[in-house]
Amino acid sequence: MSKSLEGQQLELLKLPELPDNGLLVVGFSGGADSTALAHWLMGRVQRERVLLAHVNHMLRGSEADRDQAAAEAFAREQGLKIEVLRVDVGKLARERGMGTEECGREVRYGFFHRLAPGDNDRILTAHNADDNAETMILNLCRGAGLEGLCGIPRQRGRVLRPLLGVSRKKIEEYCRENGLRYVTDSSNLTDGYTRNKLRHQVLPVLKGLNPRFIQAAAGTAELLARDRDCLMGQAEALLEGARGLWGLETKALIREEKSVRSRAVKLFLERSGGVNLERKHIEEALEILERGGGADLPGVRVSCAQGVLWAGDKAGCGPFEVPAKLGRNPIPGGKCVIISEKIPGKAENPGKIQNLLFKNELDYDIMTGPAASLPGGLALRSRRPGDRFAPAGREVTKPIKQVFQELRVPGPIRDSLPLLVCGGEIVWCPGAGASERFKVTERTKRVLVVEIEDGKG
Amino acid sequence: MSKSLEGQQLELLKLPELPDNGLLVVGFSGGADSTALAHWLMGRVQRERVLLAHVNHMLRGSEADRDQAAAEAFAREQGLKIEVLRVDVGKLARERGMGTEECGREVRYGFFHRLAPGDNDRILTAHNADDNAETMILNLCRGAGLEGLCGIPRQRGRVLRPLLGVSRKKIEEYCRENGLRYVTDSSNLTDGYTRNKLRHQVLPVLKGLNPRFIQAAAGTAELLARDRDCLMGQAEALLEGARGLWGLETKALIREEKSVRSRAVKLFLERSGGVNLERKHIEEALEILERGGGADLPGVRVSCAQGVLWAGDKAGCGPFEVPAKLGRNPIPGGKCVIISEKIPGKAENPGKIQNLLFKNELDYDIMTGPAASLPGGLALRSRRPGDRFAPAGREVTKPIKQVFQELRVPGPIRDSLPLLVCGGEIVWCPGAGASERFKVTERTKRVLVVEIEDGKG
Repeated sequence: MSKSLEGQQLELLKLPELPDNGLLVVGFSGGADSTALAHWLMGRVQRERVLLAHVNHMLRGSEADRDQAAAEAFAREQGLKIEVLRVDVGKLARERGMGTEECGREVRYGFFHRLAPGDNDRILTAHNADDNAETMILNLCRGAGLEGLCGIPRQRGRVLRPLLGVSRKKIEEYCRENGLRYVTDSSNLTDGYTRNKLRHQVLPVLKGLNPRFIQAAAGTAELLARDRDCLMGQAEALLEGARGLWGLETKALIREEKSVRSRAVKLFLERSGGVNLERKHIEEALEILERGGGADLPGVRVSCAQGVLWAGDKAGCGPFEVPAKLGRNPIPGGKCVIISEKIPGKAENPGKIQNLLFKNELDYDIMTGPAASLPGGLALRSRRPGDRFAPAGREVTKPIKQVFQELRVPGPIRDSLPLLVCGGEIVWCPGAGASERFKVTERTKRVLVVEIEDGKG
Repeated sequence: MSKSLEGQQLELLKLPELPDNGLLVVGFSGGADSTALAHWLMGRVQRERVLLAHVNHMLRGSEADRDQAAAEAFAREQGLKIEVLRVDVGKLARERGMGTEECGREVRYGFFHRLAPGDNDRILTAHNADDNAETMILNLCRGAGLEGLCGIPRQRGRVLRPLLGVSRKKIEEYCRENGLRYVTDSSNLTDGYTRNKLRHQVLPVLKGLNPRFIQAAAGTAELLARDRDCLMGQAEALLEGARGLWGLETKALIREEKSVRSRAVKLFLERSGGVNLERKHIEEALEILERGGGADLPGVRVSCAQGVLWAGDKAGCGPFEVPAKLGRNPIPGGKCVIISEKIPGKAENPGKIQNLLFKNELDYDIMTGPAASLPGGLALRSRRPGDRFAPAGREVTKPIKQVFQELRVPGPIRDSLPLLVCGGEIVWCPGAGASERFKVTERTKRVLVVEIEDGKG
């Protein structure tokens, strides 16, 4: 490939969705990649928008200081702003009990994000196609699925990676063509780190087998990302369609392909508090989905019974009773019961009383009249032994346990479900609505509406 | 892992859907893998069902002969049948202009299939988890998408690979435990072949990074295969749903995710004659789908106009005219027009004449009566300049070109579409049906039905 064509290749890069204003924070090590990125960017946007962000990890003694000085010199020569962060990453990693690489990444991105707080600010990192191929192989080594094999994301939040499709070789040629000096991190030339092992021992062999290996891997990453997006879209749709009162309806999940189902369950668990969920955890949750039961997974408890897959806090809250008032009533477990008063409008048909729409409406006249004289007043509390409830329109009184069973309330949340009591009597139960004695009728003048903030109720 | 556990691992293998009878042809090199496979199989099925198939590729001189002798000795000692094929693969590959490895594979699988002709016969090859990991990396090097990264298929037609989940290390341990001697192919120990480069230079590094790399890769392959199956199932469904009279309806294709759409288009092209289609070919077809136009791809021409994506033979046939008779009428291009006579039954409502069901029915009385006296008789021919057609019930006569346009007949097949003519007049056109003068009415006594064999008509 001729030199001019290589120049063109960088020329052809498109900045993904770059706003017209705002800071462009460039992760700037001073190496070939970030030097090329900064130089290339200067030709495309106003210089004042560019801010170089250099992190001195203090891992390589005087060499790190030399690199910092070089980065500062580059900024001076080019008339660019620069911010420098010095952090003893080795020490910090030991303190936090994490790997040096992982800790360094956390420090860098934290710094970048602090420098780019505005909605229109963007963070640009200089990851290239070689980095991407390395990440793909690294994730293959770790046993990752499709998601991991897609490599480094081109965009994540406000972080953009415009050079992800450009090989290291082309970037170095760009620097040569444009007379750019850059530093070489000596840790890149040793096999001290996992990634360098790949870089120096594996990639050369693969490039020997296919001189266009880096481009081939980039093409693969692109194809895989398309497949991933397609499957993730289906998983999101499944999640939406399967959502029920207390969790996910197992019927909807089970009839879907495992490929989509497993992704939906993973999303569900993550959004319910799950962290660092591995393949084995998802497989366990899928087993529970099919066979029932429950398990504690990292950060989240999952259980399945009566056709409902539930996920949430491992530890439920203990028994509670709090006085209830109009407005927001925070209850143990982080939720909020909202109680409001309203006058029924003409449009509302009392005949629809049993419909879901009117389920959470209570006759406020009775509550403030006859029931108000009962001891205990209005309160929100958890279930107690011996509790009974008379669902409106059902002409029966039954143990609250049976009501919960019929409502398919997942076991782990039964003790934390707030019951509205008036004068010691349960007048409203989430999912079931008003009790017979407090239901809204055509004679009702004032209505009390009860809602739980996350939509269940 | 203890030795007994490793033994168990092989123990736990399940033969995928093995019939109760039929031959089990084992691809038998005499190496550790196939020796372990044959030995393990003997403990599970009747010895008489097992047939070892050894191919001497004549690539390694006396060493190959030594291996053949060892394979024959193993069969003798174990009381197993063996078939040996000697082929000078190097010479054959040169003659056929293909790579030695590729040619060897063709020779081997051809041999195995000849030995296993019965429906219940199966071919078992000893590919292991290391082979699979190598294939995955090899395909990554080549820029393959999801399909290639799934590695070696566990089953393809009658070929089964029961050891695909077992690492080479475990297989060698199994041989040691069971006192099995095996030969070592010296070509495995050199870097002469692509695969050996991976085996000796790349895999050891990856195993160094993750000692469980082989198992991790196997897990990845399994996850990816699940995703692939899911997307392929959707592509098949899309293909089915998009199928129209002349090809695929572009509307149905375009509203589908690209991930599924590209797979459906690939399947469509392959089933229309496409061979060795690469990513760039599929991308070209997808462009044509969006923008219209046409292109010659390997083995297949693709074109898109008026909402129809068509694929088929590159070369259309020249002008033709063949006499038509009752029964099968082969026409140039490989298709067949089937003409049959029938008496209309009571259940058939002549009022439905314009429906698709009756579109291909002609009034045979007129054809054998007044029209039969016209010169030219009954014939099937391609369109000619000046051709005009009067579709039944439309009260208009129009140029055949316009009829084809309205029917959205793809350009490449317009010259090969068979028109039924009677006395020089077009009486039936595929997709349009009978002409006005020859349509079936309540007075029709004898009906002629015209069909094209592949369902279009």
